[in-house]
Amino acid sequence: MTSHTFEIDRLIQVLSKLPGLGPRSARRAVLAMIKKRESLMVPMAKALMDVAEKIHVCEICANLDTISPCTICRDEKRDKKTICVVEEVSDLWALDRAHGFEGLYHILGGTLSALDGIRPEDLNIDGLISRIKNSDIQEIILATNATVDGQTTAHYITDRLKSTGVQITAIAHGVPVGGELDYLDDGTINAAMRARKPF
Amino acid sequence: MTSHTFEIDRLIQVLSKLPGLGPRSARRAVLAMIKKRESLMVPMAKALMDVAEKIHVCEICANLDTISPCTICRDEKRDKKTICVVEEVSDLWALDRAHGFEGLYHILGGTLSALDGIRPEDLNIDGLISRIKNSDIQEIILATNATVDGQTTAHYITDRLKSTGVQITAIAHGVPVGGELDYLDDGTINAAMRARKPF
Repeated sequence: MTSHTFEIDRLIQVLSKLPGLGPRSARRAVLAMIKKRESLMVPMAKALMDVAEKIHVCEICANLDTISPCTICRDEKRDKKTICVVEEVSDLWALDRAHGFEGLYHILGGTLSALDGIRPEDLNIDGLISRIKNSDIQEIILATNATVDGQTTAHYITDRLKSTGVQITAIAHGVPVGGELDYLDDGTINAAMRARKPF
Repeated sequence: MTSHTFEIDRLIQVLSKLPGLGPRSARRAVLAMIKKRESLMVPMAKALMDVAEKIHVCEICANLDTISPCTICRDEKRDKKTICVVEEVSDLWALDRAHGFEGLYHILGGTLSALDGIRPEDLNIDGLISRIKNSDIQEIILATNATVDGQTTAHYITDRLKSTGVQITAIAHGVPVGGELDYLDDGTINAAMRARKPF
């Protein structure tokens, strides 16, 4: 038996399921919230219920929004002929924060992974193919992560899309802006060397 | 403008105020919760509201419980003549998990701190003195942390309690059980040396 009551215990248990929080940091978080009951705890409960009730998965690109199709898919100003394929919603957020892409997105929901038993039918690949078939898409930009699983997934998608005739590109791998060669891994340096361009 | 909606944005903001979570880990946590809406997000909102509504601060020892006085203060089996003084509720939890103390507790709500401007009147010290005056307390065990502020607070409380004539003890400082000398700091090693006992 622990000295905290059932209610606090349950909150600690459910908080410690979040990525990045263990039982100890969950306990600290609960105590911090109890100290700020009106300014932190109640607003958080309301914000959680709000998201749980209002946020939907976009039927076209699998983005998260209060409406489906999502704001990005509905946006008339965006380039409807280019789709950027990403693994997760967080990747869409990262690309959109960078303001370097004005087309549409497509979220796979993960990567192929033999280890985790994730097969092509577990990812949102059929949805991508039907988008290409049913609208005038001219370029698919693959922006899966530069990991083994991410690149395997990119190759698999390339194979699947060959028959559609759409142009397939991938975001570049190389030295990050602000990066110093001395601190980079060999894989990145070699990728940057292979992808060298006229200056 | 960010690509996520107002609801998600607000939840990320409020989550990133928790100790141990920054904006990036808050974003990850929100996405993890949206994926487990019914099994994680809704239960968390309910657990938060439950704690916010039901948990009170014990009028005697400042512990958190659904009832006041708290379960520990009401427990007839506990030794009512000994009070262990701790900084925070988390310290009470730690002591109670160890099952080595069967008396009552008193939570100060922090430590004296010149840097943070925390003065004696900001801590629950008057409450401790009136507990000693109004009931038959024979021993006060100081269990503030082994930090400069914790020890300053312990000395201050000792001064304040001198006139009451109650016996004041402090938990021992020394080598942690399972600890290796080679990995310990000089302060701990010297404290353990000074506090040596016949074997």
